[in-house]
Amino acid sequence: MLGGLLAQFDSATGLDATLERTLDLIGVFFFAVSGGLVAVRKGFELVGVVALSLVTALGGGVVRDLLLGATPPTAFSDVLYLIVPLLAAAIVFVAHRPIDERLGRPVRVFDAAGLGLFAVTGAVKASAFEASAVGAVLIGVISAVGGGIIRDVLANDPPELFHPDSRLYAIPAAAGATVIVVAWRNDFYSGALAIGVAAAVFAIRIASLHFGWRAPKPITGRR
Amino acid sequence: MLGGLLAQFDSATGLDATLERTLDLIGVFFFAVSGGLVAVRKGFELVGVVALSLVTALGGGVVRDLLLGATPPTAFSDVLYLIVPLLAAAIVFVAHRPIDERLGRPVRVFDAAGLGLFAVTGAVKASAFEASAVGAVLIGVISAVGGGIIRDVLANDPPELFHPDSRLYAIPAAAGATVIVVAWRNDFYSGALAIGVAAAVFAIRIASLHFGWRAPKPITGRR
Amino acid sequence: MLGGLLAQFDSATGLDATLERTLDLIGVFFFAVSGGLVAVRKGFELVGVVALSLVTALGGGVVRDLLLGATPPTAFSDVLYLIVPLLAAAIVFVAHRPIDERLGRPVRVFDAAGLGLFAVTGAVKASAFEASAVGAVLIGVISAVGGGIIRDVLANDPPELFHPDSRLYAIPAAAGATVIVVAWRNDFYSGALAIGVAAAVFAIRIASLHFGWRAPKPITGRR
Repeated sequence: MLGGLLAQFDSATGLDATLERTLDLIGVFFFAVSGGLVAVRKGFELVGVVALSLVTALGGGVVRDLLLGATPPTAFSDVLYLIVPLLAAAIVFVAHRPIDERLGRPVRVFDAAGLGLFAVTGAVKASAFEASAVGAVLIGVISAVGGGIIRDVLANDPPELFHPDSRLYAIPAAAGATVIVVAWRNDFYSGALAIGVAAAVFAIRIASLHFGWRAPKPITGRR
Repeated sequence: MLGGLLAQFDSATGLDATLERTLDLIGVFFFAVSGGLVAVRKGFELVGVVALSLVTALGGGVVRDLLLGATPPTAFSDVLYLIVPLLAAAIVFVAHRPIDERLGRPVRVFDAAGLGLFAVTGAVKASAFEASAVGAVLIGVISAVGGGIIRDVLANDPPELFHPDSRLYAIPAAAGATVIVVAWRNDFYSGALAIGVAAAVFAIRIASLHFGWRAPKPITGRR
Repeated sequence: MLGGLLAQFDSATGLDATLERTLDLIGVFFFAVSGGLVAVRKGFELVGVVALSLVTALGGGVVRDLLLGATPPTAFSDVLYLIVPLLAAAIVFVAHRPIDERLGRPVRVFDAAGLGLFAVTGAVKASAFEASAVGAVLIGVISAVGGGIIRDVLANDPPELFHPDSRLYAIPAAAGATVIVVAWRNDFYSGALAIGVAAAVFAIRIASLHFGWRAPKPITGRR
């Protein structure tokens, strides 16, 4: 499905603004599904499902836009950014059972797709504003992981990102954002690169879940 | 008390900016009392009472203003927005016992009053800025529920909003904000409508507490 | 060490902008070490250590800048604000054991140093913007305590600030910010005052830890 959708954008080269918006909205959809499924698993009702869908989908981008001074954030000025996650929440509300049964650990797959897409679109948007190079990478990472962190904080869970036994998550996002920022500053950024980097971040995340890759622990840790 | 205060504003028609500011400050007072009472119940000391009062009272409005790019937020430029909740915190600090004894479940009553007032003033302010219609409704809801969510996160409680057995809270706020946004865009917004909608949201919230109304649960939920 | 570094700035009088930036960066370093040590104690891996270092060091200042409308926040435009905490995180990652062993309760000492420095630099920056006097004091306090609160929320701990048996923390920060705002508005603010107030806040915080000073509890509290 992802491939089919992305092929459409590839054919729409030259329309980069539209490309990033489309990638962003696909990420919004995936993150919204992931947030809604977390809410269903926690036994939340309608408001909880809608709220966790919206927050997971839009939280990272809203923080990105606030940091860049791009107010009101896209999520509040471009109505598609609310319609897409509300649609995702409705789908989860009605059909979370088949979604859960068809896909093994669906939350993490949708989440990984959103991770790659948002790391790219966040780094692109930050590069287009006044952020420093390192700041633009960090804003890419925040865009990618921010919604999930806010989701976990609101669900009163410790952020999954920091679990001692969590798999690579922020690191592939940071690597992807770095590639985008370097490319942008050296004038070889392109829509194809954006899609490729998003796919690579997704693949590294999924591989790290599958093979159990972890980030290193502090040296001489006591336990 | 609410009725008496509101009657004053009604007589001050034509001064809409003042009306919304007054409604907003009344909401600030009610939310500050509600936040302070939560802090007292948790055994917090002075700083905790003041901090939860301020955060509950101002959190929703500050997030609203940040989203709209209206910086510094009213809470930091209009000194009454700090004096009112500090006064409320002082009252709670000294007299939380009679407040608790006079009113049955006072936190929820004060909270419901703040909910209705902030849903209205948030939707009005968002409508006056560049937000989309759906975005303006969402900003109204965020204004209304944001302070309570930040209060719960800081008190390390799961947000009350998402409890599976919580009563209607965000839904009346969303309904009220929708009425305001529709009225604004079709030029029949008025001060009387603002007060009426705030009162209706308050009434629905109190009724839902009394009659046990709940939001629907996800379809085919497993438990 | 603090004394030696501060002596350097004193000799650099006349360069106030540079002075505040330097004080700010020293605070960033101390808070980053404090956040990193919390992450190590919690058993977090690389991402957790880096994230808690960055968030503790930059969170208060980022919230301050968002409230003042100073976007992108210094942390994202001035690259030193990322290099310094990343360096601190690397030091903690490699050498947390000797740091822990040399200094008795090092997290709290580093944290107290950051508290004093950020209360001062936050109040100065807010005074230079449009905040009301009370608002500027509050922004100073938020700059000083915000990073620690975000650190505790992300680590899923109840904010240390609100513990019933916590020692004076926000109160010395508020006192220090008040002195700065009063001085600024009456034209007797100076670099020497800034350093003196930061040192006084640090000293009061350390003394309150040592002597067990606490904030008062609500009157007629039931327990």
